[in-house]
This record gives sequence, structure tokens and C-alpha cells, in this order.
Amino acid sequence: MHGFRIAASIVAACAAVVIGGSSADAAGDVKAGRQKALQCQTCHGLDGQAKLPEAPNLAGQTQVYLVKALKDYRSGARRNDMMSVIVHGLTDQDVDNLAAYYAAIPVTVGESPK
Amino acid sequence: MHGFRIAASIVAACAAVVIGGSSADAAGDVKAGRQKALQCQTCHGLDGQAKLPEAPNLAGQTQVYLVKALKDYRSGARRNDMMSVIVHGLTDQDVDNLAAYYAAIPVTVGESPK
Repeated sequence: MHGFRIAASIVAACAAVVIGGSSADAAGDVKAGRQKALQCQTCHGLDGQAKLPEAPNLAGQTQVYLVKALKDYRSGARRNDMMSVIVHGLTDQDVDNLAAYYAAIPVTVGESPK
Repeated sequence: MHGFRIAASIVAACAAVVIGGSSADAAGDVKAGRQKALQCQTCHGLDGQAKLPEAPNLAGQTQVYLVKALKDYRSGARRNDMMSVIVHGLTDQDVDNLAAYYAAIPVTVGESPK
């Protein structure tokens, strides 16, 4: 019975880690991300809805994709006149925070046109 | 009065062009786009909700951005192992249709985290 309790505790601990690891803000701080996003809002909106047709909507975007996009702009692998300048001063933590914030904005998708 | 009527007609015609040019499906056929999107659904979902964390959600994305993304992958300005292969056979019309389809999926954005 003692062995079972230990095993159950391990399972519970692992489950908690997995859930934590897959949550939207696992690698980033949503609140800090929102603060940093003030510099993004002219084009992308603080709510992640683009203000310009050339800029993508970011609300509810996948966190992995957002991190990659920002890091690709920072490394030069991806280029855009505005973004290449903007990302220059972002740390890895800033990138994680920004991605966590925009990914955490709830989005509901309606029925696709047939 | 006759001159005024002509002027009014010109204004009305121009307004119609502007409105037409900014509508979601102006440059693309949504129905044809949906058909073409069958080859995108494994990663991006037919409803534009990504099936993989590495793939971006496309539902309700701005049409201008989607057209640019696809054309950038096609020209090589933007690279991704999967996308660079997928876009190879897309015509300009396919690109417009795909962008029109994904842009036309309705999205409702909830309150941003504070």
C-alpha cells in the first residue's frame, strides 16, 4: 500500500509537469509580455488584431510559432522592414513573454465557409 | 445639375471599386480556396486551426498577409522545409483563393489577459 502511494504520487507529479509544460505561458510571463506588447500594438493591436492589412493577427496564435517568428526576424532568417528593426532589442525572455501573451488571448473560430 | 450627376456617378463608381478591393474575397474565390486547402489541412486544419504547434493558425488571418506569406515561400524569400515544397505548384490564382478562404473563416477574439 505504501508502494502504491509513492507510485501514485510520482504519477501525479509527472502529470502536473506535463500540464505545466504544455500550458500557454510555460516559457513566458503573460503579464510581462503584455507590457512589452505596447510597442507592437500600432501594427498588431494590443489585442492581437492587426491594425494594418500587411500585419498578421497574433491573437491566439500558437506560442511555438510566435517564438520562431520573432527569433527568425532577430537572426535575419526572416526579413521585414519593420520587424527586423523592432526585434533587435528583444532578449530571449522578451520573446518568450511576448509569445506567451499573444498566445493567451482567447480566440473562438466560427464555421468555415463551404 | 447634369455636371453634378456625372460627378456623383464617378464618386459612386470609385467608392464601389474601393469597397470591392478591400473585401475579404475580392481577389480570390473562397470556394475554390477551400478545395485547395484540403492539402493544407494536415498542418493548418481545414478550419484554419493548426494541428501542430509549429504551424500557425490561419483562420481569420488578414488576406494581404496570407498572400504575401505564400508568395514569399514560393520565391524563396521565406523558407520552411514543408512550405517551400507545398507552394511550388501554386498559381497566383491558387494563392489568392487560399488566402480568401482562410481570411473568410470568422474569428471572435475574447478579452486579452491583463
